[in-house]
Parts: sequence; structure tokens; C-alpha cells
Amino acid sequence: MDTALNEARAAAARGEVPVGAAIVKDGTLVASAGNRTRELFDPTAHAEILAIREACRALADERLTGCDLYVTLEPCPMCAGAISFARLRRLYFGAADPKGGGVEHGPRVFSQPTCHHAPEVYGGLGETEAASLLRDFFRDRR
Amino acid sequence: MDTALNEARAAAARGEVPVGAAIVKDGTLVASAGNRTRELFDPTAHAEILAIREACRALADERLTGCDLYVTLEPCPMCAGAISFARLRRLYFGAADPKGGGVEHGPRVFSQPTCHHAPEVYGGLGETEAASLLRDFFRDRR
Repeated sequence: MDTALNEARAAAARGEVPVGAAIVKDGTLVASAGNRTRELFDPTAHAEILAIREACRALADERLTGCDLYVTLEPCPMCAGAISFARLRRLYFGAADPKGGGVEHGPRVFSQPTCHHAPEVYGGLGETEAASLLRDFFRDRR
Repeated sequence: MDTALNEARAAAARGEVPVGAAIVKDGTLVASAGNRTRELFDPTAHAEILAIREACRALADERLTGCDLYVTLEPCPMCAGAISFARLRRLYFGAADPKGGGVEHGPRVFSQPTCHHAPEVYGGLGETEAASLLRDFFRDRR
């Protein structure tokens, strides 16, 4: 989660919403990314999507079986869908997102009977630091 | 929708699940794409995501305000999330997808109180052709 938090800090420094993600397999970092939606003009360029795409490229596989994702914020429905398609084994997230989350809030993507693969989910990891990065970012923008 | 159907046929010819998408603004085609998850080793490379990314690049904007998306199959939760973030105005889809759809089935992403932008949705456009492409593809694989 430290790598994900560093990616979130780097995103903030670029003027992006500070969310970061990292993907690990067998104790080794496979990919990490921060949010780049503004820089890339790409509404799909959330940290999780970029990390999943990078990890799949690195492993030359469209499935990340046995890989775990660390992300500083509860994934949105788009990212939850991508996590399911990528067959990630575990999801560790930092801050909960009652306004935009899609795991424990809103559409609860993994809890739907039409969800074909759900990771094990562990929330609250590094929550204080992840939430404070987001709070500071949005406070400075007001 | 003809462009989207052609993209779906081209996807099938590449050995990909035959789904195609096209984005139109003011009557002009801005982007079109077919599913490329296998070719790119990218579980996020659904037709809708690729078309949204291409359109955003073309318009140098992370929002596709005033643009409409045509896709041959009901979008999954991941793509529904991307459609919402991209602020697409209208969604026209072909075949319904009771097993994996996220618009009229499963998490019904646009109907959640946490969904910040929902397009107007029109289903069943080119449904027969779209469904028959998918049926033929999966029959030939068995």
C-alpha cells in the first residue's frame, strides 16, 4: 500500500485526483500507477485501470490470476468491473467512497449475481493517509 | 449502428467476442472500435472503452458532452461506468445482456443514486443482427 500511496501523492503533484494503485504477484511489484485522467484526456485512466493494463502487458496475459491489487480509494463501478474481468485475487483498498464507490457502495458490483469473478476484499488499509491526501487535494482546489 | 455492427464483424474475424461501438457528434463519426481484449492482453479493451478513449483523444477532452454512443451489446458495469464518466449524452445499444449487462441488468449502474451522470438509454437498435453475430461466434467456438 506504500507504493499505492506514493502513486497517489505523485498524482496530486500532477494536479490529478490523488488515487494510486499497485499490483503485486508472489510478493513482487508487477505494476503501479496513479490517476491520469486529465493529463491523458481519458476518463478511463483511473489508477486501477492503468495498473491493470500495465500488469497485463508485463505478464502478456489478459488475466491476472494470483495477483493482488492495492488501491488508496474504494474502486468505482468501472474499476470494480475491470478488477473482476482481470480475475484479480485480492483487493485491498484504503478509504471508503460512499459518493462514488462501487464495491461497498452504490451498485456493489461484486455482490451481483451477474458478477462472474469477485476478489477477496479488504478495506481500510492505509485509510487515514489515503483519505487525508484526498481531503487536502480538494480543500486546496476550493 | 451500422458502423458498430461492422466493428463487431471485424472483431469476430480477429477471434474476439464480436462487439462493436461507434461515437457520433453532430451527425459525424468521431471514433469507432471493436473488442480487442485478446489481441491487446487487456481486459479493459472492450469496444466501448476503446471508442471512448479514441474519441477523447480526437477531441482532446476527457468529457464527450453532446456525443452519442452506439454499441451492439448492452454495456457491462465497467463500460457503463466509463460512459457515465465520459458524460455521453445518449446510449443506443443492440442486444440485451442478461448475463453480463450493467445497464438494464445486474448492478444497473445508471439507476444508482451514486451515479453522477446517466445518458439517455435506447435499447434494441439492430438487436437481431447484433445478437446473431454473438450467437454464431459462440456456436463456432463449441
